Amino acid sequence: MARLQQSLLTLKTDSFGERLRAVAQGVEDGLDKILPPPTTRLHEAMRYSVFGGGKRLRSYFTCESSRLFNVPLQNALQTAAVIELIHAYSLVHDDLPCMDNADMRRGKPSCHKAFGEATATLVGDALIPLAFQTLASLEISPEVRLELIEELGRVIGSQGLVAGQMMDLGQEGPRSTLEDLLEQQHLKTGVLFGFAAEAGGILGKASPDERQALRSYGLLFGKAFQMMDDWLDGCGDEEAIGKPCGQDIEKFTFLNLLDPDSLRKKTEETLQKALNALSPFEGRAYLLEEALVHALPRIS
Amino acid sequence: MARLQQSLLTLKTDSFGERLRAVAQGVEDGLDKILPPPTTRLHEAMRYSVFGGGKRLRSYFTCESSRLFNVPLQNALQTAAVIELIHAYSLVHDDLPCMDNADMRRGKPSCHKAFGEATATLVGDALIPLAFQTLASLEISPEVRLELIEELGRVIGSQGLVAGQMMDLGQEGPRSTLEDLLEQQHLKTGVLFGFAAEAGGILGKASPDERQALRSYGLLFGKAFQMMDDWLDGCGDEEAIGKPCGQDIEKFTFLNLLDPDSLRKKTEETLQKALNALSPFEGRAYLLEEALVHALPRIS
Repeated sequence: MARLQQSLLTLKTDSFGERLRAVAQGVEDGLDKILPPPTTRLHEAMRYSVFGGGKRLRSYFTCESSRLFNVPLQNALQTAAVIELIHAYSLVHDDLPCMDNADMRRGKPSCHKAFGEATATLVGDALIPLAFQTLASLEISPEVRLELIEELGRVIGSQGLVAGQMMDLGQEGPRSTLEDLLEQQHLKTGVLFGFAAEAGGILGKASPDERQALRSYGLLFGKAFQMMDDWLDGCGDEEAIGKPCGQDIEKFTFLNLLDPDSLRKKTEETLQKALNALSPFEGRAYLLEEALVHALPRIS
Repeated sequence: MARLQQSLLTLKTDSFGERLRAVAQGVEDGLDKILPPPTTRLHEAMRYSVFGGGKRLRSYFTCESSRLFNVPLQNALQTAAVIELIHAYSLVHDDLPCMDNADMRRGKPSCHKAFGEATATLVGDALIPLAFQTLASLEISPEVRLELIEELGRVIGSQGLVAGQMMDLGQEGPRSTLEDLLEQQHLKTGVLFGFAAEAGGILGKASPDERQALRSYGLLFGKAFQMMDDWLDGCGDEEAIGKPCGQDIEKFTFLNLLDPDSLRKKTEETLQKALNALSPFEGRAYLLEEALVHALPRIS
């Protein structure tokens, strides 16, 4: 932790919240344009699921990584909006009765509780093509659009996000080691964070090394994020975190494998690695660095 | 019917079955390369759902429309394979308990019956991005790839396929007129046939008029196909069609609105219109014309 805390001193720590709010506003305006008006029940349910009070952390990563390469804000925001469509679909389907069977999401009834199971399934089925269609129509070079499409397809497909969800549901057989859990979380949570961070590099035609650095950062953030989530669910203060704890008690989490102190230490190590991943940018990625700081206080 | 029957005389009527088998074989080889090896339960379930003995009519349309513009067979087959991935996903999700709740599909247990509901949902969720990812990586001009992606996104999204499914499930309110049913079937069945037929024109950089002709042909085929399906379900011979009749008795079908003779007449009129749509090709599209003939005998 020493190096992380030291570097915190040099950060403009008041920028994160302000930037996150600006990005969230920009991306919600973008989503409002991408989503059809709520003239059908399906479109109403799509909007219900996409506009639900998410923090828009993935959008923040895309916008701040884009900024490193002077990508026009509009392109960054539209790409971020696409990632939010995918994130929203994944939550709607994860909540379904045959998956996590969750009645609530972000403090309101989950999509299938509000609109029924068939509509919720179809909301996801409609959000995925909308994401790809939107990328295909961005006003940027065809090659960059195709690279975004191919990479997004890869990370959310049967060897990415969906594979992680299969593991999480126990559909790929028993999983019991730390390695198993790390792989599962990498796929279920990590790869979309990795893509969100790398997307700015794709948009900005960054070098392979720069793209790799951004992807690593996103992946490590996702890993720390999930560890922190498990820690908070098992050891956090319900009032401070704003949701009931112990919800994952029957699931396979990091607290099944590590005691709380070890998990906390491992989370901090992971955050440090994420910070190190940004070193090629020599401080210019301070807004990405700040996201790591922002994620910390809740666990400390 | 007069004009259709007349033109039948000039058709090489022995070509359809042979070509359909060749296309089916080619597209299944393509699908085998696109789908990851069945080393996980998810990949096993994806293959189970994609390789299920479908006739590959949509692939036929793509390959035969491609042929009109001398598109390399490989590109036509890969695009056709992508459309089959989407068709497979739509069947898997349509069969889910919250949708049509169908236990059987093409003579074997539906995906959720064989693999469980969660896996079946995730099979669909994985097939959609695989389709877009595959299109993005085709070895054809970037502009053509993007056009295919954008158009596919449009036809399978919330204003296409998924909208039709919402209507079919009664999720968009009561629907009772012939116009309602035509719109529902257009979206649920027609648009993917329309895209499959137009795809050859997109690949072949056809003129807008040629693309429109192909799309109309596919849409009209889809319309006739659905009418015929309803007719057979209500009036067909179980043994001849190889599946139980009366399955749609509680659904909103053309037989709720038209007597069997009127429906049969309307189907024939629709097939005639589909044939007329191909007139700009002056007989060169005879393999597409033959598909209309092939679809007829079952209802006559």
